[in-house]
Amino acid sequence: MKKPVRIALLGGGQLGRMFIENALRYDAKVDVLDPDADCPCARLANRFMQGRFNDRDTVLRFAADADVVGIEIEHVSVDAMEELERRGKTVIPSSTTLRTIQDKGLQKEFYVRHGLPTAPYALVETAAGIAGHADLMPAFLKTRTGGYDGKGVMAVDLDTVIPDAFTGPYVLEKRMAIAKELAVIAVCSPDGNVVAYDPVEMVFDPVLNLVDVLLAPARCAPEVISGAKDLAARVAKAFGSPGIYAVEMFLTPAGELLVNETAPRAHNSGHYTIEGCLSSQFDQLLRCYMGWPAGDTRMTGKAAMVNLVGEGGTGSPNLEGTDRILAEPGTFIHLYGKQETRTGRKMGHVTVVAPTEGEVDRIAAWVKSHGKVLPAKTIGSTREIKQATE
Amino acid sequence: MKKPVRIALLGGGQLGRMFIENALRYDAKVDVLDPDADCPCARLANRFMQGRFNDRDTVLRFAADADVVGIEIEHVSVDAMEELERRGKTVIPSSTTLRTIQDKGLQKEFYVRHGLPTAPYALVETAAGIAGHADLMPAFLKTRTGGYDGKGVMAVDLDTVIPDAFTGPYVLEKRMAIAKELAVIAVCSPDGNVVAYDPVEMVFDPVLNLVDVLLAPARCAPEVISGAKDLAARVAKAFGSPGIYAVEMFLTPAGELLVNETAPRAHNSGHYTIEGCLSSQFDQLLRCYMGWPAGDTRMTGKAAMVNLVGEGGTGSPNLEGTDRILAEPGTFIHLYGKQETRTGRKMGHVTVVAPTEGEVDRIAAWVKSHGKVLPAKTIGSTREIKQATE
Repeated sequence: MKKPVRIALLGGGQLGRMFIENALRYDAKVDVLDPDADCPCARLANRFMQGRFNDRDTVLRFAADADVVGIEIEHVSVDAMEELERRGKTVIPSSTTLRTIQDKGLQKEFYVRHGLPTAPYALVETAAGIAGHADLMPAFLKTRTGGYDGKGVMAVDLDTVIPDAFTGPYVLEKRMAIAKELAVIAVCSPDGNVVAYDPVEMVFDPVLNLVDVLLAPARCAPEVISGAKDLAARVAKAFGSPGIYAVEMFLTPAGELLVNETAPRAHNSGHYTIEGCLSSQFDQLLRCYMGWPAGDTRMTGKAAMVNLVGEGGTGSPNLEGTDRILAEPGTFIHLYGKQETRTGRKMGHVTVVAPTEGEVDRIAAWVKSHGKVLPAKTIGSTREIKQATE
Repeated sequence: MKKPVRIALLGGGQLGRMFIENALRYDAKVDVLDPDADCPCARLANRFMQGRFNDRDTVLRFAADADVVGIEIEHVSVDAMEELERRGKTVIPSSTTLRTIQDKGLQKEFYVRHGLPTAPYALVETAAGIAGHADLMPAFLKTRTGGYDGKGVMAVDLDTVIPDAFTGPYVLEKRMAIAKELAVIAVCSPDGNVVAYDPVEMVFDPVLNLVDVLLAPARCAPEVISGAKDLAARVAKAFGSPGIYAVEMFLTPAGELLVNETAPRAHNSGHYTIEGCLSSQFDQLLRCYMGWPAGDTRMTGKAAMVNLVGEGGTGSPNLEGTDRILAEPGTFIHLYGKQETRTGRKMGHVTVVAPTEGEVDRIAAWVKSHGKVLPAKTIGSTREIKQATE
């Protein structure tokens, strides 16, 4: 008798939720581990276990009966992943890939070793070590481990005082002139075949340091588009593990593409693929897990993705402007099922798909001006700006 | 404090499941009532209650705290729906609409009263009463209530012996020459605005009497397309209740369109809208429930829908050919999460979306020849053909 494939997913946030939303139509079974019993996946998992995904024993217990082990966040126990590989389970991405990705120093060395263009850098143990690298100034100082969504990064110059709490070891990276920030999702199938989506262009919110609006495809020359896809495919091939890779890159004013960093998982920059492409990033991930052929990355139109970030304090979330958003054609609302909104927290997104860039821009601006996630009942002060934790 | 809208859905089959799959991305809360604790919705409902949706008291208990009450099957307690309307709840479709739909005799009278073209018929109490209607022969004899998916219908002539078990009252309907069977999903928004999707063309499996392959849009002349949309919109307007209407119609060799019957709910003929249109039938239903504006019914390409019907007996279901189906671009697999497959049971479907009809036909044929839902472990005989019960 054929047993259904059992997928164990480490992390139960919005990425896991959108993964499950797609997996449901195949009736695929997804177990989820997350420390938060109220996380977006808790009620949708085939089996939900509350626990820490960065704890080796917890992960081993959680994934004991799984056939495939996947992640929706990279800060998981690599030791557990390695042990699960030894036990013959399919682990995506591989523990080797994860170990490289988790340490920004190893990640930079990896790019250089594989001839993948990236900004000049140095590995520095302590704040005092910065002094010897005048050639990299001005620079970004990044903690090698634990950083996420803009945390663990600070802009520095030779005379910058590093707070004691911002401990090393670090990657010190030359601050490059940047024309655009692009991202490409590349898919590496279990058979080694690699496909890449069109690059997206990220527009940041300068206050919250979160991607605010994302345009797909990026508004670049055709050679930049094909260059970015090619670079992302090379990154995926270099890692070699089956899975999906969100490759963030910089386009310099001179037209050079530099890899910034890679997330070996579904990514905010790929949300537009749900409605904007024939096969979404979440669908590709499921196909990797199941050993199915890669999906079609072609777009069905021009697209934009507007993040819905909490405003106005803390409370149970309520999306204002739903009527207005839905009155426009080709708008797709996603709310992540988080129990509490906080100022700056990613609560959802709206994808816009339309035949032309002009139409996409018009509707995205409409969505941005009318869609607001506010607390239905304010708990904290409306002026309080908490740091986004996810 | 704003409370989230609570939706109570009567019925927990595949239609409910696909409704919930879409509702999840809005984080909408859907409670489900179904007699089967293992039904497709059981694990996805916000709250699942096991019970009979055609029992007045059960429905009233189930929907006591709901804001909106909807259906995924029309054989529910209309008395309960009426009472829920009296209690001020939003009931979609209205109890009046449901009462008309549930009785094929009242439904026929409704079409005639509203000037909607339909095949000639007579209302007959007993089998003996058929004799007086030579003008309608050959005919279909339909039980006025309780019929579903080809059950409760038999082809008759004046000399046909009606089995005792096939009890009246009946609708006796003239058998018309049929060029094509079409279906159109029409949406009536709470504000009275009506929109219609493109008509689909249904190709039946002569053995199982289930829709086998469905082509969207129907391969008809433009005036038939617009005539069918117009007719469905007139039907929806005549019923007047907010909700969605699957209007099945016949196209006669002379080019006339006749309403066959209407289901005031999501329907198999509208499954292609999930990937084939900007807003799906399930999305439209949610918009009706929530009071949001109607979605965009435009298609994103040409589409076909291939039903995945159980073959080879009874057992836990397994879709053979998944790899092959997914190797083609624009294929979307849906498995309904039914615990047991039976020969003839609807277990899922595959939607094909492609730029041209030729490409759609090629891929649909590929899907049909490679996709088979077989029992992972055969319980019954492989030759046994059980009547499809849903």
